Amino acid sequence: MSVIYNRVALIGLGLIAGSMAHAMRRAGLAEHIVGTSRTAQSRATAREIGFCDEIVATAAAAVRDADLVVLAIPVGAMADVAAEIAPHLKAGATVTDVGSVKRAVIDAVQPHIPSGVHFVPGHPLAGTEHSGPRSGFAELFENRWCLLIQSDDADADAKLKSLWEGMGAHVEFMDADHHDLVLAVTSHAPHLIAYTMVGVADELRRVTDSEVIKYSAAGFRDFTRIAASDPTMWRDVFLNNKEATLEILGRFTEELFALQRAIRRGDGDYLHDYFTRTRAIRSGIIEAGQDTVEPDFGRSTR
Amino acid sequence: MSVIYNRVALIGLGLIAGSMAHAMRRAGLAEHIVGTSRTAQSRATAREIGFCDEIVATAAAAVRDADLVVLAIPVGAMADVAAEIAPHLKAGATVTDVGSVKRAVIDAVQPHIPSGVHFVPGHPLAGTEHSGPRSGFAELFENRWCLLIQSDDADADAKLKSLWEGMGAHVEFMDADHHDLVLAVTSHAPHLIAYTMVGVADELRRVTDSEVIKYSAAGFRDFTRIAASDPTMWRDVFLNNKEATLEILGRFTEELFALQRAIRRGDGDYLHDYFTRTRAIRSGIIEAGQDTVEPDFGRSTR
Repeated sequence: MSVIYNRVALIGLGLIAGSMAHAMRRAGLAEHIVGTSRTAQSRATAREIGFCDEIVATAAAAVRDADLVVLAIPVGAMADVAAEIAPHLKAGATVTDVGSVKRAVIDAVQPHIPSGVHFVPGHPLAGTEHSGPRSGFAELFENRWCLLIQSDDADADAKLKSLWEGMGAHVEFMDADHHDLVLAVTSHAPHLIAYTMVGVADELRRVTDSEVIKYSAAGFRDFTRIAASDPTMWRDVFLNNKEATLEILGRFTEELFALQRAIRRGDGDYLHDYFTRTRAIRSGIIEAGQDTVEPDFGRSTR
Repeated sequence: MSVIYNRVALIGLGLIAGSMAHAMRRAGLAEHIVGTSRTAQSRATAREIGFCDEIVATAAAAVRDADLVVLAIPVGAMADVAAEIAPHLKAGATVTDVGSVKRAVIDAVQPHIPSGVHFVPGHPLAGTEHSGPRSGFAELFENRWCLLIQSDDADADAKLKSLWEGMGAHVEFMDADHHDLVLAVTSHAPHLIAYTMVGVADELRRVTDSEVIKYSAAGFRDFTRIAASDPTMWRDVFLNNKEATLEILGRFTEELFALQRAIRRGDGDYLHDYFTRTRAIRSGIIEAGQDTVEPDFGRSTR
């Protein structure tokens, strides 16, 4: 691989930014990586790990002379940071983000982007339930999809695509609103549902917490992984993809009520048909290389 | 380990029975294991793999002279099989089951049990999304809980407890109704919710199946694993633990509506507080050794 950007500025030093730094270094995609974070603690940790060439105290300082600026912060913080960095962006630079929603990020960031700077919104569909500067690793994006939204500049789009491919991802361009709908299905609604189920278990006083924990391997524990994701990030996702998330949750409730009615009425055929159809989607995901065929994700808890 | 039962009869040759056979052999817990299944195909496969000493064509033949009879079949099939084997059970034998609900199994099986035979209902909280005779493995029960319901005979209870411990499980005795409520929380409701979410994705025509599959790593794929579980087994679970499942689903819907309202109103504090509380349960599960701390279950799809 050869260098794609001379100077990359990472705004935010969490799981995604840290993984990008590791992945860019491994493949030699950036000459110089500068990072910053709002909190002194994160900056100190990142400095200690050393995945950036330089850690600075402010976003304004980080973006100076940067060829690529990556906004790797919660969606709710995008507008303020865009306003802060705008006067300091280099002419011809590319700004991108890694937020889980795209329409709201475009609305928050685009108005601040000076002419001659290209904003290419992005979203790598990769992550774990861990967060913070210590959680990143170079392989996070391998064989994962990164969705990009076209900017006003085809060269800027192509260059960012190469960067993501260099980090191991597959890249597709998509319309922002369609992105938000697709992600409401594959990510936002499932996360809210997992949070809800874990919340129910926590509140139900007739079953103790210790019972919930001891007997979690019967299915529940899978939900707790998702429901251990970063609270700030997810608060911002739901507040910024309201419509699509609420639409999918409405569909979900409709289906859930139909299944509940089938249970109440003892309609075994309805349940069996439903459960047979859902099995097929799993096979598709495994064939597409997006999950492991190993039983129980191949996890080991022995 | 020493032999606990001379002759064990496995009725059903799926994931659980197969894993029990492998685990009993590994630890030398049974002198002779005889297995049977309703379908000739499963019997042929089990014979080929060879995890039983003997495969016979009927449940009645399998239980003859057996010291332990294990009903490892869907809950809905328990009553018929219990009626079929009853006249052939040896005096002093123990009958157990591995069904995911306990009250309905007791109602279905107990009336058929002759006096002098002890019925100790059981439920190993272990499984994978795979099913059939090829899916079993000796380690399935290691560090998992097996819940037993006391019979009329303390010796029979103690012996079955030793068998499960010999296969690597932790054993706890529990009241049948409490079992059904606990499992509604930790297993039955989560499974129905996962099935529902996968069904929604499948039916939503504005997002294509291929998009759902490609972008599933953003959270959705975890739901598809659970929703790939055996349809017949799960149909029977829901039909036979109606009340507790519907109660938990009612609580779930209540919580979901509260979260949806918070999203609609833009109440970020409510969401953030909720998502912070649910994070704690995950830590408890990992500390209790019931899930891995590895990010993303340690799975590999690269």
